[in-house]
Amino acid sequence: MPIISLTSDLGYSSHYAAVVKGVILSLYPGATLVDVSHDVPNFDVMEAAYIVKHTFEAFPAGSIHIVAVDPEHAQADSAVVVQYRDHFFVGPNNGVLSLICDGQADACVRVEHQGLVQQGYPRSFRAARVFAPTAAFLASGGTLEEIGPETELFDLRWGEPSFAGNCLRGKIIYIDKFGNAITNISKEHFLELKQDRPFEIFIRSVRLRRIVNTYSDVNKADALAIFGESNQLEIAMREASAAQLLGLKVHDMITIEFKGNGQE
Amino acid sequence: MPIISLTSDLGYSSHYAAVVKGVILSLYPGATLVDVSHDVPNFDVMEAAYIVKHTFEAFPAGSIHIVAVDPEHAQADSAVVVQYRDHFFVGPNNGVLSLICDGQADACVRVEHQGLVQQGYPRSFRAARVFAPTAAFLASGGTLEEIGPETELFDLRWGEPSFAGNCLRGKIIYIDKFGNAITNISKEHFLELKQDRPFEIFIRSVRLRRIVNTYSDVNKADALAIFGESNQLEIAMREASAAQLLGLKVHDMITIEFKGNGQE
Amino acid sequence: MPIISLTSDLGYSSHYAAVVKGVILSLYPGATLVDVSHDVPNFDVMEAAYIVKHTFEAFPAGSIHIVAVDPEHAQADSAVVVQYRDHFFVGPNNGVLSLICDGQADACVRVEHQGLVQQGYPRSFRAARVFAPTAAFLASGGTLEEIGPETELFDLRWGEPSFAGNCLRGKIIYIDKFGNAITNISKEHFLELKQDRPFEIFIRSVRLRRIVNTYSDVNKADALAIFGESNQLEIAMREASAAQLLGLKVHDMITIEFKGNGQE
Repeated sequence: MPIISLTSDLGYSSHYAAVVKGVILSLYPGATLVDVSHDVPNFDVMEAAYIVKHTFEAFPAGSIHIVAVDPEHAQADSAVVVQYRDHFFVGPNNGVLSLICDGQADACVRVEHQGLVQQGYPRSFRAARVFAPTAAFLASGGTLEEIGPETELFDLRWGEPSFAGNCLRGKIIYIDKFGNAITNISKEHFLELKQDRPFEIFIRSVRLRRIVNTYSDVNKADALAIFGESNQLEIAMREASAAQLLGLKVHDMITIEFKGNGQE
Repeated sequence: MPIISLTSDLGYSSHYAAVVKGVILSLYPGATLVDVSHDVPNFDVMEAAYIVKHTFEAFPAGSIHIVAVDPEHAQADSAVVVQYRDHFFVGPNNGVLSLICDGQADACVRVEHQGLVQQGYPRSFRAARVFAPTAAFLASGGTLEEIGPETELFDLRWGEPSFAGNCLRGKIIYIDKFGNAITNISKEHFLELKQDRPFEIFIRSVRLRRIVNTYSDVNKADALAIFGESNQLEIAMREASAAQLLGLKVHDMITIEFKGNGQE
Repeated sequence: MPIISLTSDLGYSSHYAAVVKGVILSLYPGATLVDVSHDVPNFDVMEAAYIVKHTFEAFPAGSIHIVAVDPEHAQADSAVVVQYRDHFFVGPNNGVLSLICDGQADACVRVEHQGLVQQGYPRSFRAARVFAPTAAFLASGGTLEEIGPETELFDLRWGEPSFAGNCLRGKIIYIDKFGNAITNISKEHFLELKQDRPFEIFIRSVRLRRIVNTYSDVNKADALAIFGESNQLEIAMREASAAQLLGLKVHDMITIEFKGNGQE
């Protein structure tokens, strides 16, 4: 019995996420539903993609993930289903799904099966009208072929860090609930460039000369750099919010300068 | 296996909603529980009614809906079960359930079955003490007759829009998570009055001369009128909060003036 | 099929709680998961303990409760499983579990079974790395003996009210979603001291001379004292927030002065 996870900007105070669940349970009773978050900032495709990208592999293979952050409301883009690493993703073709799979979808179809559309819901509420019935159809054993024809996934990317003049330049791509700022710099990339050189990290007014192994390697409320979730570099504070106290925001630049001539 | 949905002002930060779920699962293991919202503003009977009214039909017939917004705390009113359109509603007899069913309950009984009361919870926590065990009893196949005698539902109504001098006057009855302001004016009522006449919508400082089909019919951050959920007229902004930017609140008046003499 | 409840400071906006659920469902498909709260203030061990302490007995015996409020991030303390009143608690050995069971654990083991550690998650994310797989292992029939050796529970306590000179002095230990301030004074303790004497309650600038039975015994927005959940003394306001309007905070002192010489 596949799991259906839900990620959206529909909020917890309004009833919209519950309507989506009702539609799924009406079509596929006994579905196991798990909220990833409904508190994605309105229309924030990048945040939705980040949290699904770092959640889906915790679920069993074959799980279905609805990603309903949908500013264009079915005008400019179609609803699609993506298959990636043995998981299924249902959402708008606005880039959110290509961010999740780094453009490496194993398959992508456009939802055209008219039997899937729940006519009672307005076009602006595609999560209930299209995404929920499509997820229920997949959970019941429906195939991508039945859902619709292959289509190209609208391509949106995270942006890679750049390296020049001994400086690795990346950016913050997510700020979590604790105020930790997660960057697009991976441990692998960092180690490859670092070799045996010392380095210095610059972000806003902060300079850091080491990457710690645990938060408790520094004093409370001290800033630190750590490889966190999925081994991405994270700027944090011990038991405090780095985002708040350092004024960090998504898209802020981070620079790592490597000292000496290891690479030259 | 019936679904039990939960709507309350108990919040997500406190543990009260989880206690309600624990009581249900203790009495009826394997219940499928779905949160509609626990973020209803404290004691806001009207908002609770709005969101349940626009959610319950997404669920399968036979579902049970706990509506626990209960300012009087069991002093002034009794706990009741309402049957309406093949769904069951459990809550206080304070008007919230008559708003949901527009006073058209198919049946209404007062909870008198003493075996249903969970004595360990204080009288002020009726959601755990009475509503949860009553919902579990219904889910296990209990009947309205066993729960208690028929009673009259306390009658509270939404208020209908009024029409006079070519002006249709309604009000905002709900503001959703996106800041969309939903009114009590239905598409059907509007079309019946409009016929082939032009019209103008007045709300606060805004005038609108058309009702669009999709949000993307206007530019970003422009105000718009649209028939949304359940075909009720909604004042919104594309990718922005109409409530915040226009200062809209529940109970604000909206006027639609029809031009020319179509009706005279 | 045991229930697994989850309490944490991981929040609802970030995806961390969903990752924890994914890990559980991957290891133990079909688990019944119930969120108690993920909105515990960051690292607030006392609030986490309070809400779990007043929730777990609503669930069936044999339920498993993950309590993931973990400031030290696995540095200073171990992960433990506590058995108490036929329930299981999985969390850090930082005092949160001894607060829940008032130091009366029936058993306590340290998690040492290496097969339980999910290596893919960082050490700072013990909820996914250790607590979730341990809970899944228990749910699947794993025993405390298999999990690890007996260990001593780090002892943290609520603090008892003190009584001297006819004054009972306690404190606020929790403020709920409605702004009700719950104290560490129990009905039993109060009645034992009161006997037939009049009394006066002092908290901040408020004096109260009686303890009411229901909120509606006072006028709206009047302050009141009531024995609420688990018969603990609560300072509240009818349909208003006592915490906000009276400026009450956790750790604030409350004094009950008994008049006359009943005890002398």
